[in-house]
Amino acid sequence: MNNSYSKATYRLYDDKADFHKKATGIAVGLTVGSWTDLPEAAKAQMQRHLGQVVSVSAHESDVPGERFADITIAYPDANFSRDIPAFLVTAFGKLSMDGRIKLIDIEPSSDFLSAFPGPKFGAQGVRDLLGVHDRPLVMSIFKSVIGQDLDNLRHQFLQQALGGVDLIKDDEILFENPLSPLVKRVEACVGALKEAEQATGQKLIYFTNLTGPTFSLKDNAKRAIEAGANGLLFNVLAYGFDALAELAADPDVSVPIAAHPAMAGAFYPSPHYGISAPVLLGKLMRIAGADLSLFPSPYGSVVMPKAENLAVKEALLDPSLPQKSAMPVPSAGIHPGLVPLIMGDFGPEVVVNAGGGVHGHPGGPAAGGQAFRQAVDAVLAGQSLEQYAQTHEPLKQAIELWGVRTS
Amino acid sequence: MNNSYSKATYRLYDDKADFHKKATGIAVGLTVGSWTDLPEAAKAQMQRHLGQVVSVSAHESDVPGERFADITIAYPDANFSRDIPAFLVTAFGKLSMDGRIKLIDIEPSSDFLSAFPGPKFGAQGVRDLLGVHDRPLVMSIFKSVIGQDLDNLRHQFLQQALGGVDLIKDDEILFENPLSPLVKRVEACVGALKEAEQATGQKLIYFTNLTGPTFSLKDNAKRAIEAGANGLLFNVLAYGFDALAELAADPDVSVPIAAHPAMAGAFYPSPHYGISAPVLLGKLMRIAGADLSLFPSPYGSVVMPKAENLAVKEALLDPSLPQKSAMPVPSAGIHPGLVPLIMGDFGPEVVVNAGGGVHGHPGGPAAGGQAFRQAVDAVLAGQSLEQYAQTHEPLKQAIELWGVRTS
Repeated sequence: MNNSYSKATYRLYDDKADFHKKATGIAVGLTVGSWTDLPEAAKAQMQRHLGQVVSVSAHESDVPGERFADITIAYPDANFSRDIPAFLVTAFGKLSMDGRIKLIDIEPSSDFLSAFPGPKFGAQGVRDLLGVHDRPLVMSIFKSVIGQDLDNLRHQFLQQALGGVDLIKDDEILFENPLSPLVKRVEACVGALKEAEQATGQKLIYFTNLTGPTFSLKDNAKRAIEAGANGLLFNVLAYGFDALAELAADPDVSVPIAAHPAMAGAFYPSPHYGISAPVLLGKLMRIAGADLSLFPSPYGSVVMPKAENLAVKEALLDPSLPQKSAMPVPSAGIHPGLVPLIMGDFGPEVVVNAGGGVHGHPGGPAAGGQAFRQAVDAVLAGQSLEQYAQTHEPLKQAIELWGVRTS
Repeated sequence: MNNSYSKATYRLYDDKADFHKKATGIAVGLTVGSWTDLPEAAKAQMQRHLGQVVSVSAHESDVPGERFADITIAYPDANFSRDIPAFLVTAFGKLSMDGRIKLIDIEPSSDFLSAFPGPKFGAQGVRDLLGVHDRPLVMSIFKSVIGQDLDNLRHQFLQQALGGVDLIKDDEILFENPLSPLVKRVEACVGALKEAEQATGQKLIYFTNLTGPTFSLKDNAKRAIEAGANGLLFNVLAYGFDALAELAADPDVSVPIAAHPAMAGAFYPSPHYGISAPVLLGKLMRIAGADLSLFPSPYGSVVMPKAENLAVKEALLDPSLPQKSAMPVPSAGIHPGLVPLIMGDFGPEVVVNAGGGVHGHPGGPAAGGQAFRQAVDAVLAGQSLEQYAQTHEPLKQAIELWGVRTS
């Protein structure tokens, strides 16, 4: 008999509510339904299914007259099966609709977590695949994919790859289509990948966008892998966390999976509603098995506040979780002049991921990739970008165009 | 070659932005990526993949100094496959993270819609199964399911059923568990269902909660149906709309599906972020194939404003969609004294759905079901509840306890 509990923490805004009473209502209402009315014999039987209030801390908000409480509830693991939909429906199903309430943290029990193998490779495993252990990884994104034929994609792939990036990912909006159907796209891009590896002597992972009907995802993943894909990109939130969890747990899906945050903005940005970014793009992605998790960087136009960014990163790397750590990929608005800042903010375990910052380089995408690698090398060498750029032309051109941001 | 477009409308809050420029940025950025820089030959080739700005209407909001625009973009169907994840990732993937923006409407093309068989039964088909065409349907929810054994569930089922409700649904938080595993639970409840049908002479649908790993959903659905389940409840948002769409399209899933809105509060309540309720719980649920869609009623503690409620209903019933209409199920806080209001607000095509309003009846759940049926009969007979209650004891007791709400 399992007596462990998985916890969820909510931020609940209410100008009048008795927060302790509210917390008890959640703990009872979302588990056994009612408690005080139960006969004693029923209580004895139901005790192990009853939710518990762990803590209630009330606060005044910055808005005059507004108050909120952070409420932590422990849900008996006995109440739900070992899958993320069951946990989320228990902890934030009906409750998500009950006023101004946001799910701000989760702490699944060890028992619950033990059902999830998590990332098959993780940050370290991805490094092992690439043979790169001493620097941040560099990822590049296709410039334009829709309406492009296989030759064009192959050409784009090669150009990006020649500059020395480690990872190349499809655009998340590239779906099955007559111009670049999955298997042919993989074959074309993997052809370019091999050509680039020969030219640079460096390994590369190509994350093919995994799309299509839910119940065909495993087949599509296997078709892509058979055709040579050595990574998959996946729009997790469009399919639910369990689809990722099952893909990651499948031994035949033998390549790293990069989780794209498409649709995440429907969940995390409101202070009053939804699911916080560290839960959504951090803990849940990692538990479900993302080897890399993309999220909006604090530097670009698609912005997430830096504190939230770093909390996502912490969740992906937190050593207290049994799952392998997942590689943080802050994305959008990245150019070589930001690399010192990214490495300062995120530390060594990060992917520097760029689209426009590679393709928009005056010397073309190969020079763009080189500029990123040179920026990383500069930081590791303890030199300023300006200093390093004196002897490294691609970096020089990049910082002439985009500048260097130091904060 | 397909030249049709599917539209999405956003409400975008921004105190400074040039909304027309922003709209063009969306139309280009989420389709071909860039446009003005393209050579003329490439433009000719890419034209059919380029998004179009349909309309931009700017407004001042009620908050002083705040302004927003409703922006409609048409996305070429050529850009995405015929599945809801592809459409949502295209129209509200990256864009969801781009500032204060909410997806407030969608208008998929006929071509896109033609890929979705939609509800297998729909509102009319559910009525046909029950043989009830002349009144709102009445649904009842189990009072308490977690920690209850099969005898208890069977007993609860029978008690609810004897009052004459049409539909009984599992609680959405009942997952696979040793006390009431799926097949045994179905057998126990269907036993009670048959007993009740014999006693009342009336048909009943039991919506079994369909849970578990994503890639086992079809098997679980079929096991439940083989065991006698004549309906399924499904937490759509925990699995994504495509899982529903594929279940609904599977000929072996030969029973109506009721979509539960668990987690919907993470999407719809913020004015600034997320996906509006009429899109989320209305259009998308129906296109994906929900025969019934549950959503928060405007009457209870879990509240949705009435205008939004009615917009959800409109989306479920709108005759301009090719999919069968889906039955609206406004839920939470419903007691018999609300029935005239519900029927006034929603019209005849509605499910009156109650948990506490059935089980909390002083005469027990059978009397609770009777009270609801009597309240419906009163309205159809053109009588006030008070008047009708004079000769109908269960209704009398109900309105003594809960009162009658007229607005």
